[in-house]
Amino acid sequence: MSSTEVSGSRVTEKAAAPLLAPPRNGGSAVGDLILRFLLFASCVVAVLVMVTGNQSQLIPITFPPFLVSRDAKFNHSPAFIYFVAAFSVVGIYAAITAILSFFALLKPGFYIKAVSHFVIFDVLLLGIVASATGAAGAVGYVGLKGNSNVQWRKICDLYDGFCKHIGASLAVSLFGSVVLTLLIIISVRALSKRIPK
Amino acid sequence: MSSTEVSGSRVTEKAAAPLLAPPRNGGSAVGDLILRFLLFASCVVAVLVMVTGNQSQLIPITFPPFLVSRDAKFNHSPAFIYFVAAFSVVGIYAAITAILSFFALLKPGFYIKAVSHFVIFDVLLLGIVASATGAAGAVGYVGLKGNSNVQWRKICDLYDGFCKHIGASLAVSLFGSVVLTLLIIISVRALSKRIPK
Repeated sequence: MSSTEVSGSRVTEKAAAPLLAPPRNGGSAVGDLILRFLLFASCVVAVLVMVTGNQSQLIPITFPPFLVSRDAKFNHSPAFIYFVAAFSVVGIYAAITAILSFFALLKPGFYIKAVSHFVIFDVLLLGIVASATGAAGAVGYVGLKGNSNVQWRKICDLYDGFCKHIGASLAVSLFGSVVLTLLIIISVRALSKRIPK
Repeated sequence: MSSTEVSGSRVTEKAAAPLLAPPRNGGSAVGDLILRFLLFASCVVAVLVMVTGNQSQLIPITFPPFLVSRDAKFNHSPAFIYFVAAFSVVGIYAAITAILSFFALLKPGFYIKAVSHFVIFDVLLLGIVASATGAAGAVGYVGLKGNSNVQWRKICDLYDGFCKHIGASLAVSLFGSVVLTLLIIISVRALSKRIPK
Protein backbone atom coordinates (compact mmCIF):
# COMPACT_ATOMS: atom_id res chain seq x y z
CA MET A 1 0.00 0.00 0.00
CA SER A 2 2.73 2.40 1.03
CA SER A 3 4.85 1.34 -1.98
CA THR A 4 1.94 2.08 -4.35
CA GLU A 5 1.48 5.52 -2.83
CA VAL A 6 5.15 6.40 -3.24
CA SER A 7 5.21 5.21 -6.85
CA GLY A 8 1.95 7.12 -7.52
CA SER A 9 3.36 10.36 -6.14
CA ARG A 10 6.49 9.87 -8.24
CA VAL A 11 4.43 9.51 -11.40
CA THR A 12 2.56 12.73 -10.54
CA GLU A 13 5.83 14.58 -9.92
CA LYS A 14 7.23 13.41 -13.25
CA ALA A 15 4.13 14.54 -15.15
CA ALA A 16 4.01 17.89 -13.36
CA ALA A 17 7.71 18.67 -13.86
CA PRO A 18 7.49 20.15 -17.37
CA LEU A 19 4.62 22.39 -16.27
CA LEU A 20 6.06 23.66 -12.98
CA ALA A 21 9.80 23.75 -13.54
CA PRO A 22 11.12 25.99 -16.33
CA PRO A 23 11.86 23.78 -19.34
CA ARG A 24 15.51 23.33 -20.32
CA ASN A 25 16.63 26.16 -22.59
CA GLY A 26 13.26 27.81 -21.92
CA GLY A 27 14.92 31.21 -21.77
CA SER A 28 16.60 30.74 -25.12
CA ALA A 29 13.36 29.51 -26.70
CA VAL A 30 11.43 32.56 -25.47
CA GLY A 31 14.26 34.86 -26.62
CA ASP A 32 14.26 33.10 -29.98
CA LEU A 33 10.52 33.69 -30.42
CA ILE A 34 10.74 37.38 -29.43
CA LEU A 35 13.74 38.03 -31.70
CA ARG A 36 12.08 36.29 -34.66
CA PHE A 37 9.00 38.43 -34.15
CA LEU A 38 11.16 41.59 -33.99
CA LEU A 39 12.97 40.48 -37.15
CA PHE A 40 9.65 39.99 -38.95
CA ALA A 41 8.40 43.40 -37.81
CA SER A 42 11.60 45.20 -38.84
CA CYS A 43 11.58 43.52 -42.28
CA VAL A 44 7.98 44.58 -42.90
CA VAL A 45 8.68 48.16 -41.76
CA ALA A 46 11.91 48.41 -43.80
CA VAL A 47 10.19 47.22 -46.98
CA LEU A 48 7.09 49.41 -46.51
CA VAL A 49 9.09 52.57 -45.73
CA MET A 50 11.36 51.95 -48.74
CA VAL A 51 8.47 51.24 -51.15
CA THR A 52 6.36 54.25 -50.09
CA GLY A 53 9.20 56.76 -50.57
CA ASN A 54 8.11 57.95 -54.07
CA GLN A 55 8.52 61.65 -54.60
CA SER A 56 7.83 63.90 -57.61
CA GLN A 57 9.79 67.10 -58.05
CA LEU A 58 9.76 69.86 -60.64
CA ILE A 59 13.24 70.19 -62.07
CA PRO A 60 14.28 73.25 -64.16
CA ILE A 61 16.06 72.26 -67.36
CA THR A 62 18.12 74.71 -69.39
CA PHE A 63 17.17 73.84 -72.96
CA PRO A 64 14.29 74.24 -73.74
CA PRO A 65 13.88 76.35 -70.58
CA PHE A 66 10.94 74.97 -68.61
CA LEU A 67 10.19 72.78 -65.60
CA VAL A 68 9.84 69.00 -65.94
CA SER A 69 8.40 66.66 -63.35
CA ARG A 70 10.86 63.97 -62.33
CA ASP A 71 10.09 61.07 -59.97
CA ALA A 72 12.38 59.49 -57.40
CA LYS A 73 11.39 55.87 -56.83
CA PHE A 74 13.13 53.00 -55.12
CA ASN A 75 13.03 50.95 -58.35
CA HIS A 76 15.26 53.42 -60.18
CA SER A 77 18.24 51.81 -58.43
CA PRO A 78 19.09 48.08 -58.63
CA ALA A 79 20.53 48.30 -55.09
CA PHE A 80 17.17 49.37 -53.65
CA ILE A 81 15.34 46.67 -55.65
CA TYR A 82 17.73 44.08 -54.18
CA PHE A 83 17.09 45.58 -50.73
CA VAL A 84 13.31 45.22 -51.08
CA ALA A 85 13.58 41.68 -52.48
CA ALA A 86 15.99 40.54 -49.75
CA PHE A 87 13.94 41.98 -46.88
CA SER A 88 10.70 40.57 -48.30
CA VAL A 89 12.22 37.08 -48.37
CA VAL A 90 13.68 37.43 -44.87
CA GLY A 91 10.35 38.78 -43.57
CA ILE A 92 8.47 35.72 -44.87
CA TYR A 93 11.18 33.44 -43.45
CA ALA A 94 10.98 35.21 -40.07
CA ALA A 95 7.19 34.80 -39.97
CA ILE A 96 7.39 31.06 -40.73
CA THR A 97 10.19 30.38 -38.23
CA ALA A 98 8.43 32.49 -35.56
CA ILE A 99 5.41 30.18 -35.84
CA LEU A 100 7.65 27.09 -35.67
CA SER A 101 9.51 28.65 -32.74
CA PHE A 102 6.17 29.14 -30.95
CA PHE A 103 5.37 25.42 -31.36
CA ALA A 104 8.89 24.59 -30.15
CA LEU A 105 8.09 26.55 -26.98
CA LEU A 106 5.07 24.31 -26.31
CA LYS A 107 7.07 21.11 -26.91
CA PRO A 108 10.22 21.38 -24.74
CA GLY A 109 12.39 18.74 -26.48
CA PHE A 110 11.77 20.19 -29.93
CA TYR A 111 13.58 23.53 -29.50
CA ILE A 112 17.16 22.31 -29.68
CA LYS A 113 16.40 20.11 -32.69
CA ALA A 114 14.71 23.02 -34.46
CA VAL A 115 17.57 25.41 -33.62
CA SER A 116 20.25 23.18 -35.13
CA HIS A 117 18.38 23.43 -38.47
CA PHE A 118 17.23 27.06 -38.24
CA VAL A 119 20.67 28.41 -37.49
CA ILE A 120 22.08 27.35 -40.88
CA PHE A 121 19.34 29.22 -42.75
CA ASP A 122 19.73 32.14 -40.34
CA VAL A 123 23.41 32.40 -41.32
CA LEU A 124 22.63 32.31 -45.06
CA LEU A 125 19.97 35.00 -44.63
CA LEU A 126 22.29 37.12 -42.48
CA GLY A 127 24.64 37.22 -45.45
CA ILE A 128 21.80 38.36 -47.73
CA VAL A 129 20.42 40.92 -45.26
CA ALA A 130 23.85 42.41 -44.51
CA SER A 131 24.79 42.69 -48.19
CA ALA A 132 21.41 44.27 -49.03
CA THR A 133 21.85 46.81 -46.23
CA GLY A 134 25.39 47.52 -47.43
CA ALA A 135 24.32 47.94 -51.06
CA ALA A 136 21.38 50.23 -50.28
CA GLY A 137 23.49 52.15 -47.76
CA ALA A 138 26.29 52.74 -50.27
CA VAL A 139 23.91 54.04 -52.97
CA GLY A 140 22.04 56.10 -50.36
CA TYR A 141 25.33 57.63 -49.23
CA VAL A 142 26.24 58.63 -52.79
CA GLY A 143 22.76 60.17 -53.07
CA LEU A 144 23.30 62.09 -49.82
CA LYS A 145 26.85 63.34 -50.33
CA GLY A 146 27.47 62.89 -54.04
CA ASN A 147 30.93 62.04 -55.32
CA SER A 148 32.87 64.96 -56.72
CA ASN A 149 35.64 62.75 -58.15
CA VAL A 150 33.32 61.18 -60.71
CA GLN A 151 30.79 64.04 -60.80
CA TRP A 152 27.89 62.09 -59.36
CA ARG A 153 25.78 64.91 -57.95
CA LYS A 154 23.92 64.54 -54.64
CA ILE A 155 20.17 64.20 -55.00
CA CYS A 156 19.03 64.52 -51.39
CA ASP A 157 18.86 68.33 -51.61
CA LEU A 158 16.14 67.90 -54.27
CA TYR A 159 14.39 64.73 -53.09
CA ASP A 160 14.44 65.32 -49.34
CA GLY A 161 11.31 63.25 -48.63
CA PHE A 162 12.60 60.30 -50.65
CA CYS A 163 15.94 60.44 -48.85
CA LYS A 164 14.24 60.50 -45.44
CA HIS A 165 12.40 57.32 -46.40
CA ILE A 166 15.66 55.67 -47.54
CA GLY A 167 17.42 56.70 -44.33
CA ALA A 168 14.61 55.46 -42.09
CA SER A 169 14.40 52.19 -43.99
CA LEU A 170 18.16 51.69 -43.66
CA ALA A 171 18.04 52.35 -39.91
CA VAL A 172 15.29 49.76 -39.46
CA SER A 173 17.15 47.26 -41.67
CA LEU A 174 20.32 47.76 -39.61
CA PHE A 175 18.25 46.98 -36.50
CA GLY A 176 16.94 43.85 -38.28
CA SER A 177 20.49 42.74 -39.10
CA VAL A 178 21.52 43.15 -35.45
CA VAL A 179 18.45 41.13 -34.37
CA LEU A 180 19.34 38.34 -36.81
CA THR A 181 22.95 38.31 -35.54
CA LEU A 182 21.72 38.10 -31.92
CA LEU A 183 19.39 35.27 -32.94
CA ILE A 184 22.30 33.27 -34.36
CA ILE A 185 24.47 33.93 -31.30
CA ILE A 186 21.67 32.82 -28.95
CA SER A 187 21.15 29.66 -31.01
CA VAL A 188 24.87 28.83 -31.00
CA ARG A 189 25.04 29.43 -27.23
CA ALA A 190 22.04 27.11 -26.72
CA LEU A 191 23.78 24.43 -28.82
CA SER A 192 27.15 24.83 -27.00
CA LYS A 193 25.47 24.57 -23.59
CA ARG A 194 23.97 21.19 -24.48
CA ILE A 195 27.36 19.63 -25.23
CA PRO A 196 28.54 17.40 -22.36
CA LYS A 197 31.83 18.61 -20.83
CA MET B 1 53.12 -11.05 -13.65
CA SER B 2 50.37 -11.75 -16.19
CA SER B 3 48.23 -9.01 -14.63
CA THR B 4 51.07 -6.48 -15.00
CA GLU B 5 51.52 -7.42 -18.65
CA VAL B 6 47.82 -6.94 -19.41
CA SER B 7 47.72 -3.57 -17.67
CA GLY B 8 50.90 -2.55 -19.51
CA SER B 9 49.43 -3.39 -22.91
CA ARG B 10 46.25 -1.47 -22.00
CA VAL B 11 48.25 1.60 -21.18
CA THR B 12 50.07 1.33 -24.52
CA GLU B 13 46.73 0.96 -26.37
CA LYS B 14 45.32 4.00 -24.63
CA ALA B 15 48.34 6.14 -25.47
CA ALA B 16 48.36 4.98 -29.10
CA ALA B 17 44.63 5.59 -29.68
CA PRO B 18 44.77 9.32 -30.50
CA LEU B 19 47.59 8.69 -32.96
CA LEU B 20 46.12 5.69 -34.79
CA ALA B 21 42.36 6.26 -34.69
CA PRO B 22 41.01 9.40 -36.37
CA PRO B 23 40.23 11.94 -33.62
CA ARG B 24 36.56 12.81 -33.06
CA ASN B 25 35.49 15.63 -35.36
CA GLY B 26 38.87 15.34 -37.07
CA GLY B 27 37.24 15.91 -40.45
CA SER B 28 35.60 19.13 -39.30
CA ALA B 29 38.84 20.35 -37.72
CA VAL B 30 40.79 19.80 -40.95
CA GLY B 31 38.00 21.46 -42.96
CA ASP B 32 38.02 24.37 -40.51
CA LEU B 33 41.76 24.87 -40.95
CA ILE B 34 41.60 24.71 -44.77
CA LEU B 35 38.64 27.11 -44.95
CA ARG B 36 40.31 29.58 -42.59
CA PHE B 37 43.42 29.52 -44.74
CA LEU B 38 41.28 30.07 -47.89
CA LEU B 39 39.51 32.96 -46.14
CA PHE B 40 42.84 34.55 -45.24
CA ALA B 41 44.13 34.15 -48.80
CA SER B 42 40.97 35.59 -50.36
CA CYS B 43 41.01 38.59 -47.98
CA VAL B 44 44.63 39.38 -48.84
CA VAL B 45 43.97 39.05 -52.59
CA ALA B 46 40.76 41.14 -52.42
CA VAL B 47 42.51 43.97 -50.55
CA LEU B 48 45.63 43.93 -52.76
CA VAL B 49 43.66 43.89 -56.03
CA MET B 50 41.43 46.73 -54.81
CA VAL B 51 44.33 48.88 -53.55
CA THR B 52 46.47 48.47 -56.67
CA GLY B 53 43.69 49.54 -59.06
CA ASN B 54 44.83 53.17 -59.45
CA GLN B 55 44.49 54.50 -62.97
CA SER B 56 45.27 57.92 -64.49
CA GLN B 57 43.36 59.07 -67.54
CA LEU B 58 43.49 62.22 -69.67
CA ILE B 59 40.01 63.75 -69.74
CA PRO B 60 39.07 66.47 -72.27
CA ILE B 61 37.33 69.45 -70.64
CA THR B 62 35.38 72.01 -72.66
CA PHE B 63 36.38 75.27 -71.00
CA PRO B 64 39.28 76.05 -71.14
CA PRO B 65 39.67 73.41 -73.89
CA PHE B 66 42.55 71.13 -72.94
CA LEU B 67 43.20 67.71 -71.42
CA VAL B 68 43.48 67.19 -67.67
CA SER B 69 44.83 64.12 -65.93
CA ARG B 70 42.30 62.59 -63.57
CA ASP B 71 42.98 59.64 -61.25
CA ALA B 72 40.63 56.84 -60.29
CA LYS B 73 41.56 55.47 -56.87
CA PHE B 74 39.75 53.21 -54.44
CA ASN B 75 39.87 55.93 -51.74
CA HIS B 76 37.72 58.28 -53.81
CA SER B 77 34.69 56.28 -52.64
CA PRO B 78 33.79 55.65 -48.97
CA ALA B 79 32.30 52.28 -49.95
CA PHE B 80 35.66 51.06 -51.29
CA ILE B 81 37.47 52.39 -48.18
CA TYR B 82 35.02 50.44 -46.00
CA PHE B 83 35.64 47.38 -48.20
CA VAL B 84 39.43 47.58 -47.74
CA ALA B 85 39.11 48.19 -43.98
CA ALA B 86 36.66 45.32 -43.49
CA PHE B 87 38.69 42.80 -45.49
CA SER B 88 41.93 43.82 -43.78
CA VAL B 89 40.36 43.16 -40.37
CA VAL B 90 38.86 39.85 -41.49
CA GLY B 91 42.19 38.81 -43.05
CA ILE B 92 44.03 39.38 -39.76
CA TYR B 93 41.27 37.54 -37.87
CA ALA B 94 41.46 34.62 -40.35
CA ALA B 95 45.25 34.39 -39.91
CA ILE B 96 44.99 34.31 -36.10
CA THR B 97 42.17 31.76 -36.02
CA ALA B 98 43.91 29.60 -38.64
CA ILE B 99 46.90 29.33 -36.28
CA LEU B 100 44.61 28.52 -33.33
CA SER B 101 42.75 26.02 -35.51
CA PHE B 102 46.07 24.33 -36.34
CA PHE B 103 46.83 23.91 -32.62
CA ALA B 104 43.28 22.60 -32.11
CA LEU B 105 44.07 19.91 -34.70
CA LEU B 106 47.04 18.75 -32.61
CA LYS B 107 45.00 18.66 -29.38
CA PRO B 108 41.84 16.64 -30.14
CA GLY B 109 39.64 17.82 -27.24
CA PHE B 110 40.32 21.49 -27.90
CA TYR B 111 38.54 21.81 -31.26
CA ILE B 112 34.95 21.77 -30.07
CA LYS B 113 35.74 24.22 -27.27
CA ALA B 114 37.48 26.57 -29.71
CA VAL B 115 34.65 26.29 -32.24
CA SER B 116 31.96 27.34 -29.77
CA HIS B 117 33.86 30.62 -29.28
CA PHE B 118 35.07 31.17 -32.87
CA VAL B 119 31.62 30.77 -34.38
CA ILE B 120 30.25 33.86 -32.62
CA PHE B 121 33.04 36.07 -34.02
CA ASP B 122 32.66 34.37 -37.39
CA VAL B 123 28.99 35.41 -37.46
CA LEU B 124 29.81 39.03 -36.56
CA LEU B 125 32.51 39.17 -39.24
CA LEU B 126 30.20 37.56 -41.82
CA GLY B 127 27.88 40.53 -41.29
CA ILE B 128 30.77 42.95 -41.87
CA VAL B 129 32.15 41.07 -44.89
CA ALA B 130 28.74 40.72 -46.55
CA SER B 131 27.85 44.38 -46.03
CA ALA B 132 31.26 45.50 -47.36
CA THR B 133 30.82 43.32 -50.44
CA GLY B 134 27.30 44.70 -50.92
CA ALA B 135 28.44 48.32 -50.54
CA ALA B 136 31.40 48.01 -52.90
CA GLY B 137 29.29 45.99 -55.34
CA ALA B 138 26.53 48.62 -55.42
CA VAL B 139 28.97 51.49 -56.06
CA GLY B 140 30.84 49.38 -58.63
CA TYR B 141 27.55 48.65 -60.40
CA VAL B 142 26.71 52.36 -60.61
CA GLY B 143 30.22 52.91 -62.02
CA LEU B 144 29.67 50.17 -64.60
CA LYS B 145 26.15 50.99 -65.75
CA GLY B 146 25.56 54.53 -64.51
CA ASN B 147 22.10 55.63 -63.45
CA SER B 148 20.22 57.66 -66.03
CA ASN B 149 17.43 58.61 -63.60
CA VAL B 150 19.75 60.73 -61.47
CA GLN B 151 22.34 61.42 -64.20
CA TRP B 152 25.19 59.55 -62.59
CA ARG B 153 27.35 58.76 -65.61
CA LYS B 154 29.14 55.44 -65.97
CA ILE B 155 32.89 55.65 -65.49
CA CYS B 156 34.00 52.16 -66.57
CA ASP B 157 34.23 53.21 -70.23
CA LEU B 158 36.98 55.65 -69.21
CA TYR B 159 38.66 53.81 -66.34
CA ASP B 160 38.58 50.26 -67.74
CA GLY B 161 41.66 49.08 -65.83
CA PHE B 162 40.37 50.43 -62.54
CA CYS B 163 36.99 48.77 -63.11
CA LYS B 164 38.63 45.43 -63.89
CA HIS B 165 40.44 45.64 -60.55
CA ILE B 166 37.19 46.44 -58.74
CA GLY B 167 35.38 43.56 -60.46
CA ALA B 168 38.15 41.05 -59.70
CA SER B 169 38.33 42.20 -56.09
CA LEU B 170 34.56 41.83 -55.73
CA ALA B 171 34.64 38.31 -57.19
CA VAL B 172 37.35 37.27 -54.72
CA SER B 173 35.49 38.90 -51.82
CA LEU B 174 32.31 37.04 -52.79
CA PHE B 175 34.33 33.82 -52.69
CA GLY B 176 35.61 34.84 -49.23
CA SER B 177 32.06 35.46 -48.01
CA VAL B 178 30.98 32.00 -49.21
CA VAL B 179 34.01 30.46 -47.45
CA LEU B 180 33.11 32.24 -44.20
CA THR B 181 29.50 31.05 -44.49
CA LEU B 182 30.67 27.46 -45.06
CA LEU B 183 32.98 27.81 -42.04
CA ILE B 184 30.04 28.79 -39.82
CA ILE B 185 27.84 25.98 -41.16
CA ILE B 186 30.61 23.40 -40.55
CA SER B 187 31.10 24.73 -37.00
CA VAL B 188 27.37 24.59 -36.25
CA ARG B 189 27.16 21.04 -37.64
CA ALA B 190 30.12 20.00 -35.45
CA LEU B 191 28.37 21.49 -32.39
CA SER B 192 25.00 19.85 -33.23
CA LYS B 193 26.64 16.43 -33.69
CA ARG B 194 28.07 16.57 -30.18
CA ILE B 195 24.66 17.01 -28.54
CA PRO B 196 23.42 13.74 -27.00
CA LYS B 197 20.14 12.53 -28.55
